[in-house]
Amino acid sequence: MNDAAMIKFLAILSAIIFFNVFFFWRGNIDMSESRTSLEAEVFRLERKRDELIRRNTDLERQNHRMELKLEHVEIQVRDLAQARKDRKHLPTIYFITPTKFRPEQKADLTRLGQTLVHIPNLFWIIVEDADEPSPLPRALLKRLNFASAYYIAVRTPEKMRMDASDPNWKLPRGVIQRNAALQYLRTNHRGLNKKSVVYFGDDDNVYDWRLFDEMRRIDKIGIWPVGIVGGLVVETPIVASNGSVIGFNSNWKPERPFPIDMAAFAINLSLIVQHPEAQFSFDVSRGYQESHFLTGLGLTRQDLEPKAEFCSKVYVWHTRTENSKLTRLDRRRVEEMALSDLEKDAVNEAGNEASNE
Amino acid sequence: MNDAAMIKFLAILSAIIFFNVFFFWRGNIDMSESRTSLEAEVFRLERKRDELIRRNTDLERQNHRMELKLEHVEIQVRDLAQARKDRKHLPTIYFITPTKFRPEQKADLTRLGQTLVHIPNLFWIIVEDADEPSPLPRALLKRLNFASAYYIAVRTPEKMRMDASDPNWKLPRGVIQRNAALQYLRTNHRGLNKKSVVYFGDDDNVYDWRLFDEMRRIDKIGIWPVGIVGGLVVETPIVASNGSVIGFNSNWKPERPFPIDMAAFAINLSLIVQHPEAQFSFDVSRGYQESHFLTGLGLTRQDLEPKAEFCSKVYVWHTRTENSKLTRLDRRRVEEMALSDLEKDAVNEAGNEASNE
Repeated sequence: MNDAAMIKFLAILSAIIFFNVFFFWRGNIDMSESRTSLEAEVFRLERKRDELIRRNTDLERQNHRMELKLEHVEIQVRDLAQARKDRKHLPTIYFITPTKFRPEQKADLTRLGQTLVHIPNLFWIIVEDADEPSPLPRALLKRLNFASAYYIAVRTPEKMRMDASDPNWKLPRGVIQRNAALQYLRTNHRGLNKKSVVYFGDDDNVYDWRLFDEMRRIDKIGIWPVGIVGGLVVETPIVASNGSVIGFNSNWKPERPFPIDMAAFAINLSLIVQHPEAQFSFDVSRGYQESHFLTGLGLTRQDLEPKAEFCSKVYVWHTRTENSKLTRLDRRRVEEMALSDLEKDAVNEAGNEASNE
Repeated sequence: MNDAAMIKFLAILSAIIFFNVFFFWRGNIDMSESRTSLEAEVFRLERKRDELIRRNTDLERQNHRMELKLEHVEIQVRDLAQARKDRKHLPTIYFITPTKFRPEQKADLTRLGQTLVHIPNLFWIIVEDADEPSPLPRALLKRLNFASAYYIAVRTPEKMRMDASDPNWKLPRGVIQRNAALQYLRTNHRGLNKKSVVYFGDDDNVYDWRLFDEMRRIDKIGIWPVGIVGGLVVETPIVASNGSVIGFNSNWKPERPFPIDMAAFAINLSLIVQHPEAQFSFDVSRGYQESHFLTGLGLTRQDLEPKAEFCSKVYVWHTRTENSKLTRLDRRRVEEMALSDLEKDAVNEAGNEASNE
């Protein structure tokens, strides 16, 4: 090997080594740079991850707080809704009120309406002894926002009408009106809840709200004491210790099948639907309306279901609103409806309101 | 240079190059491995990040849904609470009811209580003409859950008492009782809301709920028509087109300073506090109780603030509950309270309940 060749060889070898080392070195630098950037990326991602985890924790905490809050509020809302739903499932009470125009009618109906409007599932049927519908009951039902109510106007036949001077027991009252309400129920409410009940409630009696609780569980006929009626402090069924009705305390015509007042009982609607002929009548003796109707429904004393803690409580009173002592002039003006707008508002609905109905 | 030295040199150089290359290569492998693991870490972190972002998005969506739901429910709850709060800020109505035992008392008080209990911020003061407190009013207030009420028993002096057979106008009624209520208010409610009003409401009148809205904006004395009173269909102030009271339609003693019924007005409580001597009296002529009391408060006709749409509406009726036609035996038994538990429940509170009060 000559020196020149050797030098040439060494130069080539050096160049190879140099490039080799250079490329390895460059590769290392690249790789080191890439590693640094990867490490930076890892660091960035780790920071991002930690940030996301913190945010997640916050969100989860927030969610948890909201869940608790929502649960709390929802329980309140649910309770309210449940109460309303529970009330919605209560049997309907059809409260039939026969009424007739007189100076105190608006006062009495207003007071009764305000008593009934908060009773759940109460369907108020007002049947007025009138030739044609009058604005008063409709305006009252609308003003008090009755959820369910119906108004019927039907006139008592001429020969069965009483004069203002007649004693109120001279002729049976509300016969045509109660029958019209029964007819309405048989036609329009026959398919409903088997627990629905029908009650006849005059517009000037007093109804303790607890009476309506007693009406929700009646299979055939519920019965209870009535305060201040028939000359007695209380007219009541007599209940044996086994819970059955064994008599009545009425001392007026005690031989009647049911010697009780119209306010003393409520009947399951299905009985009324099943006995389409049962009704009130002008052709029965005084005091026999209740007995005539109840026997027409096929009921006997054995069917009576004593309510109001086995007839030991009074939840209804047969009160009467006194006839107002109007001057003769005012009485005639009321009869002729020759009244000022204000006076009309006292006994009826004032002209404007009425025409808006 | 000899060959041996050259070979030695080349061997050393080769070794150096070899180790150099080897270490570079190892370094590269290490670095490459570290880069791979870093890349894996980056990949893992990126997956984790994506997962966290998804979870975050879910949580944020969930949060948003809950926020909407909560907002919705809170609006409902807020409205209810606001309604209650608004009601809480209404001026208080002190409704003073003088009452006295009679067979119809429980019925009348029950009906009135059921009318009043849903009126917001109404403070019912029952003042009974009795020697000592009777269980009936307290049991009624408790049963109906009255939020604010007070019961006073104070007896009318012997010589001022009427017999059951006396006409109800023979002697002034409720004088001592109304004064006791005024005294109670002056002692216990003097510092309250300047808009509070005082109203005298008998237990057998009819109160349309709208009457109570009229009582919330009274500076001195609010006045309105009363239905069926004094022989008239309506007893009313006469209001000029400028809104001031220029007269009255009463035709009984129209010369009275205030020819109006007790049910026709409500007074700002502060007037009653400022005039501690103003009260009712046995020493005034029949029909002058209202005038005596109102002039005692320093009021003149110019102070009257006509309410109920400038006295064009009737929101209260002076009805009366008819005295029950009890048999003579039952009437005596009621007077002597020689009654069965059921009868006691009709006119009072039955023994057991009373003793639990």
